[in-house]
Amino acid sequence: MQRVIWATVLAFAIAMVLGPVVIPWLKKMKFGQTIYELGLESHKVKQGTPTMGGVIFAVPMIIVPILFSTADQRWSFLPMALVSTLGFGLVGFVDDYIKVSKKRSLGLTPMQKIVPQVVISLVLAIWAYCTPQIGSALIVPFTDKTWDLGLFYIPVMMFVLVGTVNSANLLDGVDGLLSGCSLIDFATMALVCVALGAANPENAGNMTNMMVFCGAAAGGILGFLRFNTYPANVFMGDVGSFTIGGALVAVAMVTRTALLLPMIALAMLVSSLSDIIQVGYFKYTKKKTGAGKRVFRMAPLHHHFEKGGMPETRIVSMYMSVTALLCLIALTMFF
Amino acid sequence: MQRVIWATVLAFAIAMVLGPVVIPWLKKMKFGQTIYELGLESHKVKQGTPTMGGVIFAVPMIIVPILFSTADQRWSFLPMALVSTLGFGLVGFVDDYIKVSKKRSLGLTPMQKIVPQVVISLVLAIWAYCTPQIGSALIVPFTDKTWDLGLFYIPVMMFVLVGTVNSANLLDGVDGLLSGCSLIDFATMALVCVALGAANPENAGNMTNMMVFCGAAAGGILGFLRFNTYPANVFMGDVGSFTIGGALVAVAMVTRTALLLPMIALAMLVSSLSDIIQVGYFKYTKKKTGAGKRVFRMAPLHHHFEKGGMPETRIVSMYMSVTALLCLIALTMFF
Repeated sequence: MQRVIWATVLAFAIAMVLGPVVIPWLKKMKFGQTIYELGLESHKVKQGTPTMGGVIFAVPMIIVPILFSTADQRWSFLPMALVSTLGFGLVGFVDDYIKVSKKRSLGLTPMQKIVPQVVISLVLAIWAYCTPQIGSALIVPFTDKTWDLGLFYIPVMMFVLVGTVNSANLLDGVDGLLSGCSLIDFATMALVCVALGAANPENAGNMTNMMVFCGAAAGGILGFLRFNTYPANVFMGDVGSFTIGGALVAVAMVTRTALLLPMIALAMLVSSLSDIIQVGYFKYTKKKTGAGKRVFRMAPLHHHFEKGGMPETRIVSMYMSVTALLCLIALTMFF
Repeated sequence: MQRVIWATVLAFAIAMVLGPVVIPWLKKMKFGQTIYELGLESHKVKQGTPTMGGVIFAVPMIIVPILFSTADQRWSFLPMALVSTLGFGLVGFVDDYIKVSKKRSLGLTPMQKIVPQVVISLVLAIWAYCTPQIGSALIVPFTDKTWDLGLFYIPVMMFVLVGTVNSANLLDGVDGLLSGCSLIDFATMALVCVALGAANPENAGNMTNMMVFCGAAAGGILGFLRFNTYPANVFMGDVGSFTIGGALVAVAMVTRTALLLPMIALAMLVSSLSDIIQVGYFKYTKKKTGAGKRVFRMAPLHHHFEKGGMPETRIVSMYMSVTALLCLIALTMFF
């Protein structure tokens, strides 16, 4: 436990040091967010706030787990988590970089985004499938059972990987929202790793390393929140949201707790679902009646609340409270 | 562990139900805060926001631990914690009630506040001293030792009790500040109780009950935060801050971890210290040079940051991050 606490503290410290170095540099390089033209009126004031701040927590998220890993089983789960974090993070980085350097709000084309994501997911899903401590079974929440998917594990896990990463990306729309919710998720997953490590001593090294990985993520994000809390000095950008998504889903994959994600990461899930419902219903009604109708004032869901007049700070507080409660309930499974 | 999680969830639910009932009622009864006239200019807009919202978490903090307590050792630590919470909370309630009903920003006179506080503290300190599982020794942080104060335990503990309660009161000056920081404190103390219960099975019932007590406090406060986050719909008032202070210090007292308070509740301590330094230095310089000088732009410290132009939300985020880090480091003692 001491190991994970010190990893968290160090990751926080690195983020605190990086912030005051990276933010002025991003500003100077004019890495300001070009706010989506069709977006919220109130967000126009955010034009010029630098983006790509995700590097502030991405750096400690990669370095600290390596420094604090135990030699025991070092080459098993941890490399998978790091590849997922770095791989998806890199896609986000390229997307951000294009947006910023070309001064437009759309970076990579949808195809250019999805193809590398699918490739990374395929690699990770096969890697997990072939790793003896993971295999093709998932823990079924709130039961003692596992659900063996056999070869279907690979496409299902690919869907989970791509889905989570893009849902994290969608949740990043209000100051401190994704950072706050994912902070709670990583803290929860650290505790899940504690329980799983205690339950299966043969896998203890792996679980210690994943615990440290989660701690570093939580610490780095906590440090980043210092700069990202409303009113934000910096946005995380796609590099940030993809890094968070990649890290979180990797932990769920290696701990076989992917079926827990809809619960602990419900905030991400509703962002995706609300977007899908909004677009789907609009297209359906447009086809049927000629005029497209909307279910939400705006999608993803957090913008629906925002357009309804709820202050950004209160949206974040609401999402974080619900996430904390769901995470607590999820933990009853393990303790 | 399941017990504490469900206690937290229930306390949260009660607070969520109470909020929409209590807040409109407080508004209707015109229990609005009369903002201190010498205070911050920016706080004048807060005139009319209802106060005494602390009842929203005070109710679950009292009810839930009773419901979820284990029969084993029920009549030992828990009654002490409840007396401290209710006793100090009541002083705050009376203070608030006078302020509100007389429409002035000062309620009880300093003497009327301090005398009942001292009486409650005396009762609690003697009670703890005479309880076999507590006694006159304190755990010395980061060592295996305890420090036996003998009869001095009583005045020292009285100072800790009165000091903590009033420090909590001073920290309550920015939307979500005391609620946010104390939420982390209670979560930490719940984990401390887990460790202490495991280390000393003879005291396990007591520690389970204190764990549940901390969980209920954290859950209730999390629910309250829904309404207290910037921009606040309701303030907790003295009834809230005294309840929180009384509950937190009671947990520290019965678990013999009072020496840990300066670390985990540093935010409260610096509020008191900055106030004492400000007033002391002002009086000293006034006597010496004729003109009083100030160390801080305004005391307590959070107002110093606020006058320096830091947004309220960022002050809360900073205080909560530092509290979380210190709490994590404190936990290395126990895990």
